[in-house]
Amino acid sequence: MTAASPRIKAGIVGGTGYTGVELLRLLSQHPNVELTVITSRKEDGMPVADMFPNLRGRVGLRFQTPDSAALDQCDVVFFATPHGVAMSQAQELLGHGVRLIDLAADFRLRDTQVFEKWYKMPHSCPDILEESVYGLVELNRERIAGARVVGNPGCYPTTVILGLAPLIEGGKRLVDISHLIADCKSGTSGAGRKAEVGTLYSEAGDNFKAYGVAGHRHHPEILEQLRRIAGDGLGLTFVPHLVPMIRGMFSTIYARILPEAMDTDFQALFEQRYADEAFIDVMPAGSLPETRSVRASNHLRIAVHRPGGGDQLVVLVIQDNLVKGASGQAVQNMNLMFGLPEATGLEHVAVLP
Amino acid sequence: MTAASPRIKAGIVGGTGYTGVELLRLLSQHPNVELTVITSRKEDGMPVADMFPNLRGRVGLRFQTPDSAALDQCDVVFFATPHGVAMSQAQELLGHGVRLIDLAADFRLRDTQVFEKWYKMPHSCPDILEESVYGLVELNRERIAGARVVGNPGCYPTTVILGLAPLIEGGKRLVDISHLIADCKSGTSGAGRKAEVGTLYSEAGDNFKAYGVAGHRHHPEILEQLRRIAGDGLGLTFVPHLVPMIRGMFSTIYARILPEAMDTDFQALFEQRYADEAFIDVMPAGSLPETRSVRASNHLRIAVHRPGGGDQLVVLVIQDNLVKGASGQAVQNMNLMFGLPEATGLEHVAVLP
Amino acid sequence: MTAASPRIKAGIVGGTGYTGVELLRLLSQHPNVELTVITSRKEDGMPVADMFPNLRGRVGLRFQTPDSAALDQCDVVFFATPHGVAMSQAQELLGHGVRLIDLAADFRLRDTQVFEKWYKMPHSCPDILEESVYGLVELNRERIAGARVVGNPGCYPTTVILGLAPLIEGGKRLVDISHLIADCKSGTSGAGRKAEVGTLYSEAGDNFKAYGVAGHRHHPEILEQLRRIAGDGLGLTFVPHLVPMIRGMFSTIYARILPEAMDTDFQALFEQRYADEAFIDVMPAGSLPETRSVRASNHLRIAVHRPGGGDQLVVLVIQDNLVKGASGQAVQNMNLMFGLPEATGLEHVAVLP
Amino acid sequence: MTAASPRIKAGIVGGTGYTGVELLRLLSQHPNVELTVITSRKEDGMPVADMFPNLRGRVGLRFQTPDSAALDQCDVVFFATPHGVAMSQAQELLGHGVRLIDLAADFRLRDTQVFEKWYKMPHSCPDILEESVYGLVELNRERIAGARVVGNPGCYPTTVILGLAPLIEGGKRLVDISHLIADCKSGTSGAGRKAEVGTLYSEAGDNFKAYGVAGHRHHPEILEQLRRIAGDGLGLTFVPHLVPMIRGMFSTIYARILPEAMDTDFQALFEQRYADEAFIDVMPAGSLPETRSVRASNHLRIAVHRPGGGDQLVVLVIQDNLVKGASGQAVQNMNLMFGLPEATGLEHVAVLP
Repeated sequence: MTAASPRIKAGIVGGTGYTGVELLRLLSQHPNVELTVITSRKEDGMPVADMFPNLRGRVGLRFQTPDSAALDQCDVVFFATPHGVAMSQAQELLGHGVRLIDLAADFRLRDTQVFEKWYKMPHSCPDILEESVYGLVELNRERIAGARVVGNPGCYPTTVILGLAPLIEGGKRLVDISHLIADCKSGTSGAGRKAEVGTLYSEAGDNFKAYGVAGHRHHPEILEQLRRIAGDGLGLTFVPHLVPMIRGMFSTIYARILPEAMDTDFQALFEQRYADEAFIDVMPAGSLPETRSVRASNHLRIAVHRPGGGDQLVVLVIQDNLVKGASGQAVQNMNLMFGLPEATGLEHVAVLP
Repeated sequence: MTAASPRIKAGIVGGTGYTGVELLRLLSQHPNVELTVITSRKEDGMPVADMFPNLRGRVGLRFQTPDSAALDQCDVVFFATPHGVAMSQAQELLGHGVRLIDLAADFRLRDTQVFEKWYKMPHSCPDILEESVYGLVELNRERIAGARVVGNPGCYPTTVILGLAPLIEGGKRLVDISHLIADCKSGTSGAGRKAEVGTLYSEAGDNFKAYGVAGHRHHPEILEQLRRIAGDGLGLTFVPHLVPMIRGMFSTIYARILPEAMDTDFQALFEQRYADEAFIDVMPAGSLPETRSVRASNHLRIAVHRPGGGDQLVVLVIQDNLVKGASGQAVQNMNLMFGLPEATGLEHVAVLP
Repeated sequence: MTAASPRIKAGIVGGTGYTGVELLRLLSQHPNVELTVITSRKEDGMPVADMFPNLRGRVGLRFQTPDSAALDQCDVVFFATPHGVAMSQAQELLGHGVRLIDLAADFRLRDTQVFEKWYKMPHSCPDILEESVYGLVELNRERIAGARVVGNPGCYPTTVILGLAPLIEGGKRLVDISHLIADCKSGTSGAGRKAEVGTLYSEAGDNFKAYGVAGHRHHPEILEQLRRIAGDGLGLTFVPHLVPMIRGMFSTIYARILPEAMDTDFQALFEQRYADEAFIDVMPAGSLPETRSVRASNHLRIAVHRPGGGDQLVVLVIQDNLVKGASGQAVQNMNLMFGLPEATGLEHVAVLP
Repeated sequence: MTAASPRIKAGIVGGTGYTGVELLRLLSQHPNVELTVITSRKEDGMPVADMFPNLRGRVGLRFQTPDSAALDQCDVVFFATPHGVAMSQAQELLGHGVRLIDLAADFRLRDTQVFEKWYKMPHSCPDILEESVYGLVELNRERIAGARVVGNPGCYPTTVILGLAPLIEGGKRLVDISHLIADCKSGTSGAGRKAEVGTLYSEAGDNFKAYGVAGHRHHPEILEQLRRIAGDGLGLTFVPHLVPMIRGMFSTIYARILPEAMDTDFQALFEQRYADEAFIDVMPAGSLPETRSVRASNHLRIAVHRPGGGDQLVVLVIQDNLVKGASGQAVQNMNLMFGLPEATGLEHVAVLP
């Protein structure tokens, strides 16, 4: 980092969950970031490294109560909190010139009625929502760069939207958009660091199940984004599953190729769409991605298949749900917002095995 | 067991793999079975319980070389061998009045050309294949009861066929059979007890991946069976995945409901179809089955979903791939073939957690 | 079961944890048991099989509130409850002629002061404690047969006591009993089905740690039992560890051989001690037991090592912590108490893989 | 890195195993290293990133056959090979001025007779062995800095030696060194990326076992090093175990405190010994380290316990077996050998969860 590099004072609200500790891991190694405050109402006073011993010797901060005085001094504040917290503090922080990146859902859905339906609370600052940007860099790069408030995408939506975008952008008519299917699989860290029976080792280990089949909050988020691209005729069946692994997300996406698009070179289509993206890796034809190839890295890999050369397209998408699916994407957003090269502090090689 | 109960002398050819040890577990607890011989060319002379210490004190047999003299005395011989072995020994064993249940693929596919394409070997006894029965009890109960040779179904086919049968049997026109999708997930024991890098703990653990997307041997097997039911217009995309768990299989099946069938009560349809089946559990509407609920048991559970009440049907099917998906189903076939109540020796309660 | 076999009406208090569901699995398959009542204050009215779907089709009971009227009709009541519950209900149940098996700690420790120190509650029925028997069958068979109240041993104590008993019984002077070491490892189910962060899949998975090094409740229990055998000079360092697996317990026990005992045949010593025990398997010299060889079975296996032929004895002990370490042992106790053959209903072959 | 920083050309012989891919991960992110050659006889011509997709976009090299021309140009060559390979190539590489770091055992044991006994091969270059240095930085820092050949320590020895060194260095008489015990637990990656039944997911998963109780190659290595410090009277019982996790090593070390040393402040002793070590973290009194706190990092953490304040010392040591236990330590050695700050390229924060 040269003298000219910006120095960013960053705060984290609610740092005791998995997106919190992952932000800490990434930000503590980021060359342009100075972590100045991290809050937790419950763990006030506790050294962060006591809770997360991987940070021993690296992060000297203690949790403090949510205290706007300290947060107000930040250049950027990340919300790694339950839904509803960011919107309650957004107005004041913006007033102090602080930029916000929310890892919860407060600024993901444009439609406040949909938000209220799925998150069971009214949206308290629709005006800020109005100006906020959905932080999927590969779709909204320019708007994110100028944003004061970014709603960091959900983990499932990141994979499904990026896995479908090349097929539907620009008014393309390649696949039947009315009946898309996303069969998604997530590691248990996606459920967060909450004391719940369902994600105990003894419950989730050596076991596989679907959940949220009747409705999952990421469904409306995916639909909203995809329909902004392809129109309201787009329909998607979304079935999430829980995998006995800690990190990792795998989405198997099915789209039926339209008769008039049977000659399309889908491999080339995806490669061209993401040719300039630092974190999107369209793998060679025939590839079978595995989640561990992005463990602890911000990369998302895509493989495009067309079994038997027929009319059913199968797009495989992987990411680390805590990195590209959460905290890494948040840092990528921060980099853009502060004029840094997008990959700064995110160039870690995935940990395999 | 009363004095009138039949006593079955059973042999196992190739007992050193997972279907072998699972047969041993089930047969050693079966009230009507006397295990008389188990073969392994490689482990000749080794006590079975030295290789599989769970059998210590229960199975006193030693592996012996494949020896028709001993096998010829059996009432039934199970082949837990690589593909191609059963058909090489079938003629002789049948000549001695022995009945055969093959857990490999030799008697699964009716079409020898398809067999030869996928298994890279000629079929050496098409006449025996002709008389053999595909051992999916819930479809072929009567024919199995009279069979001399049964081809035990593959693990994936068991779930996909049973998950789709109620929708397509009897000439029903309920779903678009041209574009069915089976997104299937298997535990690692499905790959067998073979020394391979890909299924090492360090490779398959904390990881999720698809495989066989370009083609998997169970695909033609599923297609053959489903097309026998519903005709050649049936098409299926099949994507298997590997889950970091030992036992368990989960199939998520997608079928688009035809406009004229939108009023169908699919829950009732499935419940009625399997009402009399001891091992098929159609769960109540809204259920989310998990694989551990059938761990080490012969049950297969089905849940029928229709997200948002739309036209996309989602059928969730679980089984233990080593039991209903292999050795348990083989014992179920044996019971039928010898006139025993179908559930004899298969009534173990699943092990949870 | 002949007509003369006793029919036992059994109740379970607090059946929503892992020892509860394991009792349900074992008792529902036990030929002499009729499960008549299972209680849970919190889940009153819920079908047991809704919580534990492995029991679908096998256990039709619903949870009911702790109701002495129903429990009073039982022949035996198992307490699969938090510590302190059994002793609060013992008096009344005994008054109705019900026998009690407590899987918690209320009747494990003979010394009420030790109990009060470690369990932070006074002992409310020291007289019943006085008559109760510590339910380690291989040590106390005769007394258990005549007991009205049995304190089922802790999981760690079962392995450590049985792994050391042959060395110290009968006034033997074979090893330095002043500095015994038990380095123990448990699967996560030992922590119970409680919503706690520490045993989440994302916390306990792909991880290994020690816990309770400064003090663990099973330490005084082990000490009390061992000192009853060998006197107060016995000392033991006990270090438990948490393993990322669901079921299974492995204890590595170190004892220094006394100079005068260097010629002892320890293998023979252990074999003779447990020669008549149905569930204790002293493996051949050189064996390396693995926990999965007893998964879901009531067996406990022991291997005796003396590395390099030196003076350090290493005893390896394995069990399934939920079976021989808890619910299986409880059923074994029940069998004894009701005059049944000890292995009745406990003859399941371990599930491997 | 300033212009004055050295630029190191590095080669890897045998890069297809886990220590190989971990070297690739670390070296590809090391600011002073240029990876110039990686060899594999078997995978000649294959892009490294095809085998290890975590390296896609980061490592462009292809495997090539072991070719001294390319290796001769290196400044340093790492051997991530089976035992015996490094010593066969050492002479020639040294002749070209290349420095060697062997991750196998060729330069670990000083005593060639011991080497030959345990590795079943003669040592082919005892003279080079004579000048080589055992690469445990915290013990041999100065000699490593000047070494041409470094034998990188085994994974278990790293934890056991560092866990005992403070107790026995400098002629201290604090514990009974005649009967030390190291009860060690390793993740499966320690077994390497070899196709073997014993480390399949279906075998090692949900399972725990000891191995090598009768003798393990790391035992003589530990003994040799500890006896160099404390004399031949030192004795150690070493029992390794296999844990169902990928990375991570946990050693529980037992030492009996001598009567004359009962007043020692062991916590302070350890803290002082490692006060200046970048990678050794002596945790606060009472700490319970967990392996994931060092996952993918070069740190080793130690916690010192004295249960009940008695005379049994319990030292808990954790590391990532592939980093501090192998490839990270190798890079640490390289840094020293080339005059770089010891932590260069090794400052990654551990990945948790």
